[in-house]
Amino acid sequence: MTPYELRQLAARGEFTSPTAGYCEGYVQANLVALPEQYAQDFEAFCRKNPKPCPLLEVVGPGTALTSRLAEGADLRNTLPRYRVWRDGKIQQETQDVTAFYQEDLVFFLLGCSFSFESALVQAGISLRHVEEQRNVSMYNTNIELEAVGVFTGSMVVSMRPIRYDRVIDACLITAHYPEVHGAPVHIGYPHLIGIADLQSPDYGDSVSIHADEIPVFWPCGVTPQNVLVQAKLPFAITHAPGHMFVGDMKNADFYQEIR
Amino acid sequence: MTPYELRQLAARGEFTSPTAGYCEGYVQANLVALPEQYAQDFEAFCRKNPKPCPLLEVVGPGTALTSRLAEGADLRNTLPRYRVWRDGKIQQETQDVTAFYQEDLVFFLLGCSFSFESALVQAGISLRHVEEQRNVSMYNTNIELEAVGVFTGSMVVSMRPIRYDRVIDACLITAHYPEVHGAPVHIGYPHLIGIADLQSPDYGDSVSIHADEIPVFWPCGVTPQNVLVQAKLPFAITHAPGHMFVGDMKNADFYQEIR
Repeated sequence: MTPYELRQLAARGEFTSPTAGYCEGYVQANLVALPEQYAQDFEAFCRKNPKPCPLLEVVGPGTALTSRLAEGADLRNTLPRYRVWRDGKIQQETQDVTAFYQEDLVFFLLGCSFSFESALVQAGISLRHVEEQRNVSMYNTNIELEAVGVFTGSMVVSMRPIRYDRVIDACLITAHYPEVHGAPVHIGYPHLIGIADLQSPDYGDSVSIHADEIPVFWPCGVTPQNVLVQAKLPFAITHAPGHMFVGDMKNADFYQEIR
Repeated sequence: MTPYELRQLAARGEFTSPTAGYCEGYVQANLVALPEQYAQDFEAFCRKNPKPCPLLEVVGPGTALTSRLAEGADLRNTLPRYRVWRDGKIQQETQDVTAFYQEDLVFFLLGCSFSFESALVQAGISLRHVEEQRNVSMYNTNIELEAVGVFTGSMVVSMRPIRYDRVIDACLITAHYPEVHGAPVHIGYPHLIGIADLQSPDYGDSVSIHADEIPVFWPCGVTPQNVLVQAKLPFAITHAPGHMFVGDMKNADFYQEIR
Protein backbone atom coordinates (compact mmCIF):
# COMPACT_ATOMS: atom_id res chain seq x y z
CA MET A 1 0.00 0.00 0.00
CA THR A 2 1.39 3.42 -0.91
CA PRO A 3 0.96 6.39 1.46
CA TYR A 4 -1.51 7.88 -1.04
CA GLU A 5 -3.59 4.69 -1.03
CA LEU A 6 -3.57 4.56 2.80
CA ARG A 7 -4.68 8.20 3.01
CA GLN A 8 -7.47 7.61 0.46
CA LEU A 9 -8.72 4.58 2.40
CA ALA A 10 -8.63 6.61 5.63
CA ALA A 11 -10.55 9.45 3.94
CA ARG A 12 -13.28 6.96 2.96
CA GLY A 13 -13.36 5.53 6.51
CA GLU A 14 -11.96 2.21 5.29
CA PHE A 15 -8.63 2.39 7.16
CA THR A 16 -9.03 2.99 10.91
CA SER A 17 -6.08 1.12 12.50
CA PRO A 18 -2.76 2.30 13.94
CA THR A 19 -0.28 3.08 11.15
CA ALA A 20 2.79 1.32 12.61
CA GLY A 21 4.09 -1.22 10.13
CA TYR A 22 2.33 0.31 7.12
CA CYS A 23 4.07 2.03 4.21
CA GLU A 24 7.55 0.95 5.38
CA GLY A 25 10.17 3.62 4.68
CA TYR A 26 7.72 6.54 4.46
CA VAL A 27 7.56 9.35 7.02
CA GLN A 28 4.81 9.36 9.64
CA ALA A 29 3.91 12.43 11.66
CA ASN A 30 2.09 13.59 14.80
CA LEU A 31 -0.74 16.10 14.31
CA VAL A 32 -1.70 19.05 16.53
CA ALA A 33 -4.31 21.56 15.24
CA LEU A 34 -5.08 24.78 17.15
CA PRO A 35 -7.04 28.00 16.59
CA GLU A 36 -4.85 30.71 15.04
CA GLN A 37 -4.75 32.76 18.25
CA TYR A 38 -2.55 30.05 19.86
CA ALA A 39 -0.64 29.07 16.75
CA GLN A 40 2.17 31.61 16.96
CA ASP A 41 2.99 30.65 20.55
CA PHE A 42 2.76 26.93 19.80
CA GLU A 43 5.06 27.29 16.80
CA ALA A 44 7.55 29.27 18.91
CA PHE A 45 7.26 26.59 21.61
CA CYS A 46 8.09 23.85 19.07
CA ARG A 47 11.05 25.82 17.73
CA LYS A 48 12.40 26.31 21.25
CA ASN A 49 11.96 22.60 22.03
CA PRO A 50 12.91 20.96 18.74
CA LYS A 51 13.98 17.63 20.23
CA PRO A 52 10.56 16.56 21.58
CA CYS A 53 8.57 18.80 19.15
CA PRO A 54 10.33 18.68 15.75
CA LEU A 55 8.23 20.75 13.36
CA LEU A 56 7.95 19.14 9.92
CA GLU A 57 5.17 21.27 8.38
CA VAL A 58 2.68 23.98 9.32
CA VAL A 59 -0.58 24.10 7.33
CA GLY A 60 -3.14 26.92 7.45
CA PRO A 61 -4.92 28.98 8.55
CA GLY A 62 -7.36 28.95 5.64
CA THR A 63 -6.35 25.54 4.34
CA ALA A 64 -6.04 21.97 5.60
CA LEU A 65 -3.99 20.71 2.63
CA THR A 66 -0.37 19.64 3.08
CA SER A 67 2.37 20.62 0.66
CA ARG A 68 5.74 19.45 2.10
CA LEU A 69 5.10 15.97 3.52
CA ALA A 70 2.61 15.17 0.75
CA GLU A 71 1.08 17.18 -2.10
CA GLY A 72 -2.50 18.19 -1.29
CA ALA A 73 -3.41 15.68 1.44
CA ASP A 74 -6.46 16.83 3.43
CA LEU A 75 -5.53 16.79 7.11
CA ARG A 76 -9.24 16.67 8.06
CA ASN A 77 -9.74 13.08 6.94
CA THR A 78 -6.52 11.39 5.74
CA LEU A 79 -5.45 10.29 9.22
CA PRO A 80 -7.14 7.07 10.39
CA ARG A 81 -8.25 8.42 13.76
CA TYR A 82 -8.41 11.82 15.54
CA ARG A 83 -8.99 13.21 19.00
CA VAL A 84 -11.12 16.33 19.50
CA TRP A 85 -10.16 18.29 22.63
CA ARG A 86 -12.23 20.82 24.64
CA ASP A 87 -10.74 22.66 27.62
CA GLY A 88 -7.78 20.28 27.81
CA LYS A 89 -9.91 17.13 27.80
CA ILE A 90 -10.60 14.58 25.08
CA GLN A 91 -14.20 15.16 23.98
CA GLN A 92 -14.33 12.40 21.42
CA GLU A 93 -12.37 10.24 19.03
CA THR A 94 -13.45 10.17 15.39
CA GLN A 95 -12.25 9.12 11.92
CA ASP A 96 -13.00 12.47 10.28
CA VAL A 97 -12.78 16.00 11.69
CA THR A 98 -14.23 17.83 8.67
CA ALA A 99 -17.32 18.70 10.76
CA PHE A 100 -15.06 20.39 13.36
CA TYR A 101 -13.09 22.40 10.82
CA GLN A 102 -12.80 26.13 11.39
CA GLU A 103 -11.14 28.54 8.94
CA ASP A 104 -8.82 29.74 11.70
CA LEU A 105 -7.30 26.31 12.44
CA VAL A 106 -3.52 25.87 12.06
CA PHE A 107 -2.25 22.29 11.62
CA PHE A 108 1.17 21.29 12.95
CA LEU A 109 2.84 18.09 11.74
CA LEU A 110 5.60 16.93 14.10
CA GLY A 111 8.23 14.26 13.52
CA CYS A 112 7.76 10.73 14.81
CA SER A 113 10.38 8.21 15.93
CA PHE A 114 9.17 5.52 13.52
CA SER A 115 11.61 7.07 11.05
CA PHE A 116 14.74 6.47 13.10
CA GLU A 117 13.48 3.07 14.25
CA SER A 118 13.79 1.69 10.73
CA ALA A 119 17.36 3.05 10.57
CA LEU A 120 18.17 1.22 13.84
CA VAL A 121 16.71 -2.05 12.58
CA GLN A 122 18.66 -1.71 9.31
CA ALA A 123 21.83 -1.46 11.42
CA GLY A 124 20.98 -4.73 13.18
CA ILE A 125 19.81 -3.10 16.43
CA SER A 126 16.67 -4.91 17.53
CA LEU A 127 13.75 -3.10 19.14
CA ARG A 128 12.30 -4.89 22.15
CA HIS A 129 8.82 -3.35 21.88
CA VAL A 130 8.62 -4.58 18.29
CA GLU A 131 9.90 -8.07 19.24
CA GLU A 132 7.40 -8.25 22.11
CA GLN A 133 4.62 -6.67 19.99
CA ARG A 134 3.99 -3.96 22.56
CA ASN A 135 3.82 -0.17 22.40
CA VAL A 136 7.12 1.57 23.23
CA SER A 137 7.60 2.49 26.94
CA MET A 138 7.18 6.23 27.58
CA TYR A 139 7.79 8.22 30.76
CA ASN A 140 7.32 11.69 32.20
CA THR A 141 10.66 13.20 33.21
CA ASN A 142 12.08 16.13 35.18
CA ILE A 143 13.57 17.62 31.98
CA GLU A 144 11.94 21.06 31.83
CA LEU A 145 10.80 22.44 28.50
CA GLU A 146 11.27 26.07 27.46
CA ALA A 147 7.88 27.71 28.07
CA VAL A 148 6.11 29.97 25.56
CA GLY A 149 2.76 31.51 26.63
CA VAL A 150 0.43 28.79 27.93
CA PHE A 151 2.67 26.06 26.53
CA THR A 152 4.91 24.63 29.24
CA GLY A 153 5.73 21.39 31.04
CA SER A 154 8.37 18.70 31.02
CA MET A 155 9.62 16.30 28.38
CA VAL A 156 8.13 12.89 27.75
CA VAL A 157 10.70 10.31 26.65
CA SER A 158 10.50 6.93 24.97
CA MET A 159 12.83 4.17 26.18
CA ARG A 160 14.44 1.38 24.17
CA PRO A 161 16.74 -1.18 25.85
CA ILE A 162 19.89 -1.44 23.70
CA ARG A 163 22.63 -4.06 24.07
CA TYR A 164 25.62 -2.38 25.75
CA ASP A 165 27.89 -2.71 22.74
CA ARG A 166 25.40 -1.02 20.35
CA VAL A 167 24.47 2.01 22.50
CA ILE A 168 26.97 4.36 20.83
CA ASP A 169 25.84 3.16 17.39
CA ALA A 170 22.19 3.80 18.33
CA CYS A 171 23.15 7.29 19.49
CA LEU A 172 25.02 8.16 16.28
CA ILE A 173 22.45 6.59 13.93
CA THR A 174 19.51 8.49 15.43
CA ALA A 175 21.53 11.73 15.67
CA HIS A 176 21.35 11.80 11.86
CA TYR A 177 17.56 12.36 12.08
CA PRO A 178 17.00 15.52 14.17
CA GLU A 179 13.60 16.16 12.53
CA VAL A 180 12.29 12.89 13.96
CA HIS A 181 13.59 13.43 17.53
CA GLY A 182 17.25 12.77 16.73
CA ALA A 183 19.84 11.60 19.27
CA PRO A 184 18.90 10.25 22.71
CA VAL A 185 18.39 12.78 25.48
CA HIS A 186 19.73 10.42 28.13
CA ILE A 187 21.58 7.11 28.43
CA GLY A 188 21.58 4.68 31.29
CA TYR A 189 20.48 6.20 34.60
CA PRO A 190 16.67 6.72 34.70
CA HIS A 191 16.62 8.22 38.22
CA LEU A 192 18.78 11.13 37.02
CA ILE A 193 15.91 12.29 34.75
CA GLY A 194 13.15 11.64 37.30
CA ILE A 195 12.07 8.12 36.33
CA ALA A 196 11.57 5.93 39.41
CA ASP A 197 10.61 2.59 37.86
CA LEU A 198 11.24 1.49 34.28
CA GLN A 199 8.64 -1.26 34.63
CA SER A 200 5.88 1.33 35.26
CA PRO A 201 5.82 3.54 32.17
CA ASP A 202 3.50 6.57 32.18
CA TYR A 203 2.39 5.80 28.59
CA GLY A 204 2.66 2.70 26.41
CA ASP A 205 3.70 -0.71 27.70
CA SER A 206 6.57 -2.05 29.79
CA VAL A 207 9.12 -4.25 28.00
CA SER A 208 11.80 -6.70 29.18
CA ILE A 209 15.31 -5.33 29.78
CA HIS A 210 18.11 -7.91 29.67
CA ALA A 211 21.21 -7.89 31.91
CA ASP A 212 23.47 -6.88 29.01
CA GLU A 213 21.23 -3.99 27.93
CA ILE A 214 21.20 -0.31 28.83
CA PRO A 215 18.03 1.79 28.81
CA VAL A 216 18.35 4.59 26.24
CA PHE A 217 15.90 7.52 26.32
CA TRP A 218 14.78 9.59 23.32
CA PRO A 219 12.62 12.74 23.24
CA CYS A 220 9.05 11.63 22.54
CA GLY A 221 6.22 12.90 20.35
CA VAL A 222 3.78 12.48 23.25
CA THR A 223 5.36 15.62 24.73
CA PRO A 224 3.22 18.09 22.70
CA GLN A 225 -0.05 16.33 23.59
CA ASN A 226 0.98 16.33 27.24
CA VAL A 227 1.70 20.06 27.00
CA LEU A 228 -1.69 20.57 25.31
CA VAL A 229 -3.52 18.92 28.21
CA GLN A 230 -1.82 21.29 30.65
CA ALA A 231 -2.53 24.34 28.45
CA LYS A 232 -6.30 23.61 28.67
CA LEU A 233 -7.11 25.27 25.33
CA PRO A 234 -10.87 25.64 24.62
CA PHE A 235 -10.45 23.68 21.36
CA ALA A 236 -7.83 21.52 19.66
CA ILE A 237 -7.53 18.50 17.40
CA THR A 238 -4.78 15.85 17.44
CA HIS A 239 -4.24 12.43 15.93
CA ALA A 240 -5.19 9.50 18.14
CA PRO A 241 -1.99 7.86 19.50
CA GLY A 242 -0.50 5.50 16.95
CA HIS A 243 -2.83 6.72 14.19
CA MET A 244 -0.36 8.97 12.41
CA PHE A 245 -0.34 11.04 9.24
CA VAL A 246 1.55 9.06 6.59
CA GLY A 247 3.35 11.31 4.08
CA ASP A 248 4.95 10.79 0.67
CA MET A 249 8.47 11.71 1.84
CA LYS A 250 10.85 8.87 2.65
CA ASN A 251 12.41 8.54 6.10
CA ALA A 252 15.77 8.66 4.29
CA ASP A 253 14.89 12.21 3.13
CA PHE A 254 15.35 13.33 6.73
CA TYR A 255 18.94 12.10 7.01
CA GLN A 256 21.23 15.02 7.94
CA GLU A 257 24.87 15.58 8.69
CA ILE A 258 25.50 15.69 12.44
CA ARG A 259 26.68 19.14 13.52
CA MET B 1 55.86 27.90 21.80
CA THR B 2 55.15 26.50 18.33
CA PRO B 3 55.31 22.74 17.66
CA TYR B 4 58.49 23.37 15.64
CA GLU B 5 60.10 25.18 18.58
CA LEU B 6 59.09 22.39 20.98
CA ARG B 7 60.54 19.74 18.66
CA GLN B 8 63.79 21.70 18.28
CA LEU B 9 64.12 22.06 22.07
CA ALA B 10 63.45 18.33 22.47
CA ALA B 11 66.08 17.53 19.81
CA ARG B 12 68.64 19.55 21.81
CA GLY B 13 67.63 17.79 25.05
CA GLU B 14 66.20 21.04 26.45
CA PHE B 15 62.55 19.92 26.60
CA THR B 16 62.03 16.69 28.53
CA SER B 17 58.58 17.05 30.14
CA PRO B 18 55.17 15.60 29.28
CA THR B 19 53.62 17.48 26.37
CA ALA B 20 50.08 17.89 27.80
CA GLY B 21 49.14 21.57 27.83
CA TYR B 22 51.81 22.60 25.30
CA CYS B 23 51.08 23.87 21.78
CA GLU B 24 47.32 24.13 22.41
CA GLY B 25 45.31 23.25 19.32
CA TYR B 26 48.06 21.20 17.62
CA VAL B 27 47.90 17.45 17.13
CA GLN B 28 49.88 15.14 19.41
CA ALA B 29 50.59 11.52 18.57
CA ASN B 30 51.66 8.19 20.08
CA LEU B 31 54.80 6.59 18.62
CA VAL B 32 55.51 2.90 18.01
CA ALA B 33 58.63 1.92 16.02
CA LEU B 34 59.28 -1.69 14.98
CA PRO B 35 61.68 -3.61 12.71
CA GLU B 36 60.29 -3.96 9.18
CA GLN B 37 59.64 -7.69 9.59
CA TYR B 38 56.80 -6.87 12.04
CA ALA B 39 55.63 -3.67 10.36
CA GLN B 40 53.17 -5.15 7.89
CA ASP B 41 51.36 -7.12 10.59
CA PHE B 42 51.33 -4.15 12.97
CA GLU B 43 49.92 -1.85 10.29
CA ALA B 44 47.23 -4.44 9.45
CA PHE B 45 46.50 -4.75 13.20
CA CYS B 46 46.03 -0.97 13.48
CA ARG B 47 43.76 -0.89 10.43
CA LYS B 48 41.62 -3.69 11.89
CA ASN B 49 41.40 -1.91 15.26
CA PRO B 50 41.15 1.75 14.22
CA LYS B 51 39.36 2.93 17.37
CA PRO B 52 42.18 2.22 19.86
CA CYS B 53 44.95 2.33 17.18
CA PRO B 54 44.13 5.15 14.74
CA LEU B 55 46.99 5.34 12.26
CA LEU B 56 47.97 8.94 11.43
CA GLU B 57 51.26 8.38 9.61
CA VAL B 58 53.73 5.61 8.79
CA VAL B 59 57.39 6.64 8.32
CA GLY B 60 60.16 4.40 6.94
CA PRO B 61 61.83 2.02 6.52
CA GLY B 62 64.93 3.93 5.41
CA THR B 63 63.88 7.27 6.90
CA ALA B 64 62.84 8.66 10.26
CA LEU B 65 61.48 11.95 8.88
CA THR B 66 57.76 12.75 9.02
CA SER B 67 55.86 14.27 6.12
CA ARG B 68 52.12 14.34 7.00
CA LEU B 69 51.95 15.46 10.65
CA ALA B 70 54.95 17.77 10.20
CA GLU B 71 57.39 18.42 7.34
CA GLY B 72 60.73 16.73 7.99
CA ALA B 73 60.62 16.21 11.76
CA ASP B 74 63.16 13.60 12.90
CA LEU B 75 61.34 10.96 14.94
CA ARG B 76 64.62 9.89 16.55
CA ASN B 77 64.98 13.00 18.71
CA THR B 78 62.00 15.39 18.43
CA LEU B 79 59.93 13.61 21.10
CA PRO B 80 60.89 14.64 24.65
CA ARG B 81 61.24 11.08 25.97
CA TYR B 82 61.34 7.54 24.57
CA ARG B 83 61.16 3.97 25.78
CA VAL B 84 63.45 1.32 24.31
CA TRP B 85 61.98 -2.19 24.49
CA ARG B 86 63.74 -5.57 24.35
CA ASP B 87 61.78 -8.84 24.41
CA GLY B 88 58.60 -7.08 25.54
CA LYS B 89 60.27 -5.29 28.45
CA ILE B 90 61.34 -1.68 28.87
CA GLN B 91 65.15 -1.67 28.71
CA GLN B 92 65.60 2.05 29.24
CA GLU B 93 64.05 5.49 28.91
CA THR B 94 65.99 8.12 26.99
CA GLN B 95 65.62 11.55 25.35
CA ASP B 96 67.15 10.51 22.03
CA VAL B 97 67.02 7.19 20.18
CA THR B 98 69.40 8.07 17.36
CA ALA B 99 71.92 5.59 18.79
CA PHE B 100 69.32 2.81 18.52
CA TYR B 101 68.31 3.62 14.95
CA GLN B 102 68.34 0.80 12.41
CA GLU B 103 67.65 1.29 8.70
CA ASP B 104 64.84 -1.29 8.88
CA LEU B 105 62.80 0.55 11.52
CA VAL B 106 59.23 1.58 10.64
CA PHE B 107 57.69 4.39 12.73
CA PHE B 108 53.95 4.46 13.41
CA LEU B 109 52.27 7.64 14.64
CA LEU B 110 48.88 6.96 16.25
CA GLY B 111 46.15 9.45 17.22
CA CYS B 112 45.89 10.73 20.79
CA SER B 113 42.78 11.83 22.68
CA PHE B 114 44.26 15.26 23.54
CA SER B 115 42.74 16.40 20.24
CA PHE B 116 39.12 15.65 21.14
CA GLU B 117 39.65 16.87 24.70
CA SER B 118 40.07 20.43 23.51
CA ALA B 119 36.84 20.09 21.50
CA LEU B 120 35.03 18.93 24.66
CA VAL B 121 36.37 21.84 26.69
CA GLN B 122 35.36 24.28 23.95
CA ALA B 123 31.81 22.92 24.25
CA GLY B 124 31.80 23.63 27.99
CA ILE B 125 32.30 20.01 29.06
CA SER B 126 34.82 20.00 31.87
CA LEU B 127 37.45 17.28 32.26
CA ARG B 128 37.88 16.01 35.81
CA HIS B 129 41.48 14.81 35.36
CA VAL B 130 42.45 18.29 34.13
CA GLU B 131 40.56 19.99 37.00
CA GLU B 132 42.23 17.69 39.52
CA GLN B 133 45.61 17.90 37.73
CA ARG B 134 45.89 14.14 37.44
CA ASN B 135 46.51 11.77 34.57
CA VAL B 136 43.33 10.40 32.94
CA SER B 137 42.05 7.08 34.40
CA MET B 138 42.74 4.10 32.12
CA TYR B 139 41.56 0.50 32.42
CA ASN B 140 42.06 -2.91 30.84
CA THR B 141 38.76 -4.26 29.49
CA ASN B 142 37.24 -7.48 28.15
CA ILE B 143 36.78 -5.89 24.70
CA GLU B 144 38.76 -8.22 22.43
CA LEU B 145 40.87 -6.77 19.63
CA GLU B 146 41.11 -8.31 16.18
CA ALA B 147 44.40 -10.22 16.15
CA VAL B 148 46.99 -10.05 13.37
CA GLY B 149 50.11 -12.25 13.73
CA VAL B 150 51.71 -11.72 17.15
CA PHE B 151 49.60 -8.61 17.77
CA THR B 152 46.59 -9.44 19.92
CA GLY B 153 44.97 -8.59 23.25
CA SER B 154 42.13 -6.50 24.60
CA MET B 155 41.33 -2.81 24.44
CA VAL B 156 42.54 -0.28 27.00
CA VAL B 157 40.03 2.54 27.61
CA SER B 158 40.27 5.98 29.15
CA MET B 159 37.41 7.16 31.39
CA ARG B 160 36.04 10.67 31.81
CA PRO B 161 33.12 11.35 34.20
CA ILE B 162 30.60 13.49 32.27
CA ARG B 163 27.56 15.25 33.76
CA TYR B 164 24.46 13.23 32.81
CA ASP B 165 23.00 15.98 30.61
CA ARG B 166 26.19 16.37 28.51
CA VAL B 167 26.90 12.68 27.81
CA ILE B 168 25.18 12.68 24.40
CA ASP B 169 27.00 15.90 23.47
CA ALA B 170 30.34 14.36 24.48
CA CYS B 171 29.53 11.32 22.35
CA LEU B 172 28.64 13.36 19.26
CA ILE B 173 31.53 15.84 19.63
CA THR B 174 34.19 13.14 19.87
CA ALA B 175 32.57 11.08 17.08
CA HIS B 176 33.72 13.86 14.74
CA TYR B 177 37.36 12.89 15.43
CA PRO B 178 37.73 9.19 14.47
CA GLU B 179 41.49 9.60 13.84
CA VAL B 180 42.03 10.51 17.50
CA HIS B 181 39.93 7.63 18.95
CA GLY B 182 36.52 9.11 18.03
CA ALA B 183 33.26 8.28 19.82
CA PRO B 184 33.15 6.48 23.17
CA VAL B 185 33.24 2.69 23.12
CA HIS B 186 31.00 2.40 26.18
CA ILE B 187 28.78 4.56 28.37
CA GLY B 188 27.76 4.01 31.94
CA TYR B 189 28.19 0.42 33.12
CA PRO B 190 31.88 -0.45 33.74
CA HIS B 191 31.21 -4.07 34.80
CA LEU B 192 29.78 -4.81 31.34
CA ILE B 193 33.23 -4.22 29.80
CA GLY B 194 35.15 -6.01 32.55
CA ILE B 195 36.04 -3.10 34.85
CA ALA B 196 35.50 -4.03 38.51
CA ASP B 197 36.41 -0.80 40.29
CA LEU B 198 36.59 2.67 38.75
CA GLN B 199 38.69 3.90 41.66
CA SER B 200 41.47 1.41 40.81
CA PRO B 201 42.58 2.28 37.28
CA ASP B 202 45.16 0.01 35.62
CA TYR B 203 47.03 3.05 34.26
CA GLY B 204 46.95 6.76 35.16
CA ASP B 205 45.25 8.13 38.25
CA SER B 206 41.81 7.79 39.82
CA VAL B 207 39.54 10.85 39.72
CA SER B 208 36.38 11.90 41.60
CA ILE B 209 33.02 10.96 40.08
CA HIS B 210 30.05 13.05 41.22
CA ALA B 211 26.51 11.72 41.80
CA ASP B 212 25.18 13.50 38.70
CA GLU B 213 27.94 12.16 36.45
CA ILE B 214 28.17 9.07 34.26
CA PRO B 215 31.48 7.34 33.47
CA VAL B 216 32.14 7.47 29.72
CA PHE B 217 34.81 5.22 28.19
CA TRP B 218 36.88 5.97 25.09
CA PRO B 219 39.34 3.72 23.21
CA CYS B 220 42.81 4.56 24.51
CA GLY B 221 46.24 5.02 22.94
CA VAL B 222 47.79 2.83 25.64
CA THR B 223 46.25 -0.14 23.79
CA PRO B 224 49.11 -0.50 21.25
CA GLN B 225 51.83 -0.41 23.95
CA ASN B 226 49.88 -3.01 25.91
CA VAL B 227 49.71 -5.18 22.80
CA LEU B 228 53.44 -4.66 22.24
CA VAL B 229 54.25 -5.97 25.72
CA GLN B 230 52.28 -9.15 24.98
CA ALA B 231 53.89 -9.56 21.54
CA LYS B 232 57.37 -9.71 23.21
CA LEU B 233 59.22 -8.41 20.12
CA PRO B 234 63.02 -8.55 20.37
CA PHE B 235 63.23 -4.80 19.75
CA ALA B 236 60.88 -1.80 19.66
CA ILE B 237 60.83 1.90 20.46
CA THR B 238 57.85 3.91 21.78
CA HIS B 239 57.30 7.34 23.27
CA ALA B 240 57.30 7.48 27.08
CA PRO B 241 53.67 7.90 28.31
CA GLY B 242 52.61 11.53 28.12
CA HIS B 243 55.71 12.54 26.13
CA MET B 244 54.07 12.69 22.71
CA PHE B 245 55.11 13.73 19.23
CA VAL B 246 53.75 17.24 18.61
CA GLY B 247 52.91 17.88 14.94
CA ASP B 248 52.18 20.95 12.83
CA MET B 249 48.62 19.90 11.96
CA LYS B 250 45.80 21.43 13.97
CA ASN B 251 43.37 19.25 15.93
CA ALA B 252 40.63 20.90 13.89
CA ASP B 253 42.18 19.39 10.73
CA PHE B 254 40.97 16.00 11.97
CA TYR B 255 37.29 17.01 12.16
CA GLN B 256 35.20 14.68 9.97
CA GLU B 257 31.57 14.18 9.09
CA ILE B 258 30.02 11.37 11.15
CA ARG B 259 28.98 8.45 8.95
